[in-house]
Amino acid sequence: MKVSKYLETEATVELPGVLKREVINASDGAPNFCMRVFDLEPGSSTPSHSHAWEHEVYVLSGKGVVVAEGGETEISRDSVVFVPPDELHRFRNTGFETLRFICVIPFVE
Amino acid sequence: MKVSKYLETEATVELPGVLKREVINASDGAPNFCMRVFDLEPGSSTPSHSHAWEHEVYVLSGKGVVVAEGGETEISRDSVVFVPPDELHRFRNTGFETLRFICVIPFVE
Repeated sequence: MKVSKYLETEATVELPGVLKREVINASDGAPNFCMRVFDLEPGSSTPSHSHAWEHEVYVLSGKGVVVAEGGETEISRDSVVFVPPDELHRFRNTGFETLRFICVIPFVE
Repeated sequence: MKVSKYLETEATVELPGVLKREVINASDGAPNFCMRVFDLEPGSSTPSHSHAWEHEVYVLSGKGVVVAEGGETEISRDSVVFVPPDELHRFRNTGFETLRFICVIPFVE
């Protein structure tokens, strides 16, 4: 068993204004999926993209939008987002504080 | 894509003092794993058990302990817990407020 605080995991800069922490990954022995925590600074966003795997997202703090093929939807603390495989998506911080969310993905080849 | 607030998902009573919400599950189209949110009232705990699949846990609020084969470890907001397959474990609320955590599991037969 591994017990930690998410801030103990080293962050990597995915993009300017976008930090990623892999708080549970394969090196911990996780066999199926990876838990990451993203911090988006105000005004920052993830790129619009799609891929063959899903996202399961839980918003911890901040305000933003998730942009999908059907338009934008507001998200904030305690929002849950399921992004199915192959759907175009993007997360953007529209608030004045960090937008922080958990994003779980399966391990993919 | 599904966007919701976790409280919009109907809760089931797992045990007295233990509520479970499956905020993303197979009925949403999730192909690999399920995101649940648990609420443990003060003094409540999950049963000590083990199973062939892992847990990936993120604590949203409250205080408690995770009890494993190696002893008890304190958890609180922003704690991350990886429970490997087949390890005995139990979560207990040791605080005065609800202990709320996300627990992601793979779909199992």
